[in-house]
Amino acid sequence: MTRKIILDCDPGHDDAIAMLLAHGNPDVELVAVTTVVGNQTLEKVTRNALSVARIAGITGVPFAAGCPRPLVRNVETALEIHGESGLDGPLLPEPRLELDRRHAVDLIIDTVMAHEPGEITLVPTAGLTNIALAVRKEPRIASRVREVVLMGGGYHQGNWSAVAEFNIIIDPEAAHIVFNESWPVTMVGLDLTHQALATPDVVERIAGVGTRPARFVGELLDFFGATYREAQGFAHPPVHDPCAVAYVIDPDVMTVRKAPVDIELSGGLTLGMTVTDLRAPAPDDCHTQVAVELDRDRFWGLVVDALERIGDVTP
Amino acid sequence: MTRKIILDCDPGHDDAIAMLLAHGNPDVELVAVTTVVGNQTLEKVTRNALSVARIAGITGVPFAAGCPRPLVRNVETALEIHGESGLDGPLLPEPRLELDRRHAVDLIIDTVMAHEPGEITLVPTAGLTNIALAVRKEPRIASRVREVVLMGGGYHQGNWSAVAEFNIIIDPEAAHIVFNESWPVTMVGLDLTHQALATPDVVERIAGVGTRPARFVGELLDFFGATYREAQGFAHPPVHDPCAVAYVIDPDVMTVRKAPVDIELSGGLTLGMTVTDLRAPAPDDCHTQVAVELDRDRFWGLVVDALERIGDVTP
Amino acid sequence: MTRKIILDCDPGHDDAIAMLLAHGNPDVELVAVTTVVGNQTLEKVTRNALSVARIAGITGVPFAAGCPRPLVRNVETALEIHGESGLDGPLLPEPRLELDRRHAVDLIIDTVMAHEPGEITLVPTAGLTNIALAVRKEPRIASRVREVVLMGGGYHQGNWSAVAEFNIIIDPEAAHIVFNESWPVTMVGLDLTHQALATPDVVERIAGVGTRPARFVGELLDFFGATYREAQGFAHPPVHDPCAVAYVIDPDVMTVRKAPVDIELSGGLTLGMTVTDLRAPAPDDCHTQVAVELDRDRFWGLVVDALERIGDVTP
Amino acid sequence: MTRKIILDCDPGHDDAIAMLLAHGNPDVELVAVTTVVGNQTLEKVTRNALSVARIAGITGVPFAAGCPRPLVRNVETALEIHGESGLDGPLLPEPRLELDRRHAVDLIIDTVMAHEPGEITLVPTAGLTNIALAVRKEPRIASRVREVVLMGGGYHQGNWSAVAEFNIIIDPEAAHIVFNESWPVTMVGLDLTHQALATPDVVERIAGVGTRPARFVGELLDFFGATYREAQGFAHPPVHDPCAVAYVIDPDVMTVRKAPVDIELSGGLTLGMTVTDLRAPAPDDCHTQVAVELDRDRFWGLVVDALERIGDVTP
Repeated sequence: MTRKIILDCDPGHDDAIAMLLAHGNPDVELVAVTTVVGNQTLEKVTRNALSVARIAGITGVPFAAGCPRPLVRNVETALEIHGESGLDGPLLPEPRLELDRRHAVDLIIDTVMAHEPGEITLVPTAGLTNIALAVRKEPRIASRVREVVLMGGGYHQGNWSAVAEFNIIIDPEAAHIVFNESWPVTMVGLDLTHQALATPDVVERIAGVGTRPARFVGELLDFFGATYREAQGFAHPPVHDPCAVAYVIDPDVMTVRKAPVDIELSGGLTLGMTVTDLRAPAPDDCHTQVAVELDRDRFWGLVVDALERIGDVTP
Repeated sequence: MTRKIILDCDPGHDDAIAMLLAHGNPDVELVAVTTVVGNQTLEKVTRNALSVARIAGITGVPFAAGCPRPLVRNVETALEIHGESGLDGPLLPEPRLELDRRHAVDLIIDTVMAHEPGEITLVPTAGLTNIALAVRKEPRIASRVREVVLMGGGYHQGNWSAVAEFNIIIDPEAAHIVFNESWPVTMVGLDLTHQALATPDVVERIAGVGTRPARFVGELLDFFGATYREAQGFAHPPVHDPCAVAYVIDPDVMTVRKAPVDIELSGGLTLGMTVTDLRAPAPDDCHTQVAVELDRDRFWGLVVDALERIGDVTP
Repeated sequence: MTRKIILDCDPGHDDAIAMLLAHGNPDVELVAVTTVVGNQTLEKVTRNALSVARIAGITGVPFAAGCPRPLVRNVETALEIHGESGLDGPLLPEPRLELDRRHAVDLIIDTVMAHEPGEITLVPTAGLTNIALAVRKEPRIASRVREVVLMGGGYHQGNWSAVAEFNIIIDPEAAHIVFNESWPVTMVGLDLTHQALATPDVVERIAGVGTRPARFVGELLDFFGATYREAQGFAHPPVHDPCAVAYVIDPDVMTVRKAPVDIELSGGLTLGMTVTDLRAPAPDDCHTQVAVELDRDRFWGLVVDALERIGDVTP
Repeated sequence: MTRKIILDCDPGHDDAIAMLLAHGNPDVELVAVTTVVGNQTLEKVTRNALSVARIAGITGVPFAAGCPRPLVRNVETALEIHGESGLDGPLLPEPRLELDRRHAVDLIIDTVMAHEPGEITLVPTAGLTNIALAVRKEPRIASRVREVVLMGGGYHQGNWSAVAEFNIIIDPEAAHIVFNESWPVTMVGLDLTHQALATPDVVERIAGVGTRPARFVGELLDFFGATYREAQGFAHPPVHDPCAVAYVIDPDVMTVRKAPVDIELSGGLTLGMTVTDLRAPAPDDCHTQVAVELDRDRFWGLVVDALERIGDVTP
């Protein structure tokens, strides 16, 4: 059965690849794409999302812009990773899609409420501001959403502080809301995504696809690899966001473990930490799980396969 | 010039009186009434708001229900002050008004955006969840709203903890959002409202109006007086919420002082405190002010006058 | 009965006056003077204490140096109030007293344990590091000390932040320890000491004493007045520390009110606040009280009287 | 060269084994044993320490009692792990050693100051209250101590909360003091000690020693194993404290990694977490390191060897 997903993102190099994966893979259907401040300003990431849609040949899917700032904290972007535009590296075409008139929060709510319970999966790959606002404005979506599979956090790893990850620390209150709602949450965090490194063999496989979208991905990885080397000392860049999409496509692409996860809101050193209790087996009613180990071959196979299916798009 | 206000409330005994004051006074115009969880559940306070509308003879004003829970914290109601229904004491008539189909957050946004900048004043007399969501969903309202005159907080007084007031502590993150937006905020806090005591002479003046709505107010004050005596040791109950409406009607009803105000989000003892810096004259760009001293005669005069103007409503 | 006190201080202009008051007044007996980092480094305030002893003609009293830094936080001094030396303004004579060999913490413990229960009163007029260490090292002093009368905090006023006072915020963990021990604590805070302003008539009365120590006080007030005007906008400087000594001499010099007081250790805006619950009468077992209103005449009378009794000391 | 250590402990089953290891091994010399509240009350753990001294035949080493409570937090003991006495299981003989008259804090200070800089290593295997008080009372010990090798914390594991370990969370302020002093700190945390499991083969090797002290250890492990199974679901109990002693004896018994470590003091979920920054190589001036991987054979070899050297003590 095709899984219908709403991708809530802030493209962002890895968000762009996540979008391509979701578009190219036949087992998921993009029913909406929403944007939120994160890697760059809302204006920039929204334009990027539309440009990527053109590159990927995505049509007939509503795109909506959401929140230009986190709930409580001030805006913090990831300039040093994603550059001035939020998607530095490739030349981006002018968008052709028109934005949906609705606010992302309303598009999310409307889409979930218009489908049967259990049909829609939310895949946030950015700060959780939109998702948090949506479930606070319309609490009924909590029981209608099939599950939330998000990229963010980490049970043993941080990147924006010693113990916190960017998507969570930029809006910890929103993350607190999302993790504490009753829906099932799969946290695809740094523990997992730091295994999804775009090593030279991966880059080569992608180049081998030989299409325009694949070249675009190659250019993304070039830039992303350079900034990750510079800013965080990685030999090869971790390609975070497609991992969340991949889990929806094929849960066997990674192992997961049920464990209680909560968000630290007041720590001086630990703000935005996804505090995970791994001391004992999770209680039966635990609704959160964390991604542990990636099947790298299977994961990159999904990415390459999606690019091959997309084929050569004439933008 | 008549001041157009949106009353965002959780009736609540004093909210009901605030609504009567706003309806009866010719210098303010109720353009919308929105409800939010607070003194009781959203369902109860919404029903109460509609019942009060019938008692007051309010028609042609949209009423909309908002958020059933705070942003981050769990629901906490004021059962011991407002009773099981949130408006215990009087017999409440069945509502006749239909609720607006929109969410309170959207009604607030639509109303502000449909008016000229500077036309609409927000008067929240409850937790600030709706207002916070509205300005996060539509940031442009921050510069279009004339001012926010809210009942809540206190620079030297608390009631729900040693230093925090109910409306703020039930959703401190929402309060943080509202106080840190760029709009002018007047905090009508406990420092002021504890001067608005319904002493026997006040009760007598209200009784003297002799109408059904006035009798309703009398019954409210009876119940409210008893719970305040019991729960907080007050000889006479402080009638908080109408003070905020009164300030919009006539700023001379109280003295105010410009001072920076911010909300404590992480204190172990001070969560939800409206931290006010009174050490020195406020900086020129200070957009917050706090209510200091009430002109009691003028205030109760406004309340009695509003009841007289409303006259005898046949529910 | 003469009250035996240990003055734990960080001279500091007002600490110096407190020492003179304690020395000159016949109803209190200085049994020890201990110093702690605060207004300036430990080295400086200790030297200042010994210089003041020479100016005042204090002999036969042990002086001991204590902690050079707070328990957890980094050192913060009050340079802009007390100047580079911690006692800028007057020319300070070389000390003649030798420091006691013991650490202040041990001198406090030894002194309390060597006296009968109820004999010794602690009068801290600085950060509470020494006192906290003493009671943690020797818990039995908690029940042997008669009471702790400290200058610090404020229930409605702050100076080093909107809601916190210098002596508390420089070592909030120490303050937490002291306020939560079982001994009686009287908090002589800013609410009280901001009433002890050295107005021109006060300065004149002191000048009228005509002795060297009185001239020294005059010079202190000159400097202190200038920095308080500059740094905090006071027309006349508040002379904090002698108020605590005055309360031990004569409790009628101020009104006090029993109320629970605790110290905020984790607030982002409220760190070091002396959170005071004034909502209701204090419970019977409440061991803390706060100073409310000063009898100015009586207070300054005590100061002038002490200077007169000290007479003209030949340093 | 024999390493001189002060063992600061709260026996405690694993503390007792640590004491036996330190006593029996020729490469370390116990120059003092100090006790502090932790696994049980100060009174109980002090008596236990003296009983263990008799069992081990320790003489000529000063034992001193320290703090009966943490700096700021309330006392919390580990009753469910160590039982009512703090050392449940074996029959404990009456102590024969007399306690040193000094407070543990003073014994630590005196011992460090009486030795050359670099001679004394502190080995805390309990809450850090004594060590923190010592370095606050006598700051010069920070540069005279060779290093602090402590059992406590964990960079990826917790036991008393999801992310905090018992020795740290019972006095996080003390831990903050110790980790932020300038001395070298080796954190032998749960990451390491959960590798030191007393598996059946280990128990058998110890039983094979055949002496009274070895039988005592066997009885300790019996009880400790049962409570760890019950309270924390371990198949075999982790024997924490001797790991710290073992590292002093032979650094090759484990791998360590330099990394900044700080203590969370204000987190709602993370209080007492030893926040460790493993994102990048530690800066050159990093004075903290964390234990990573245990050489189990080497470790248990040290324990068995120490028991053999102690031989059969006639208590």
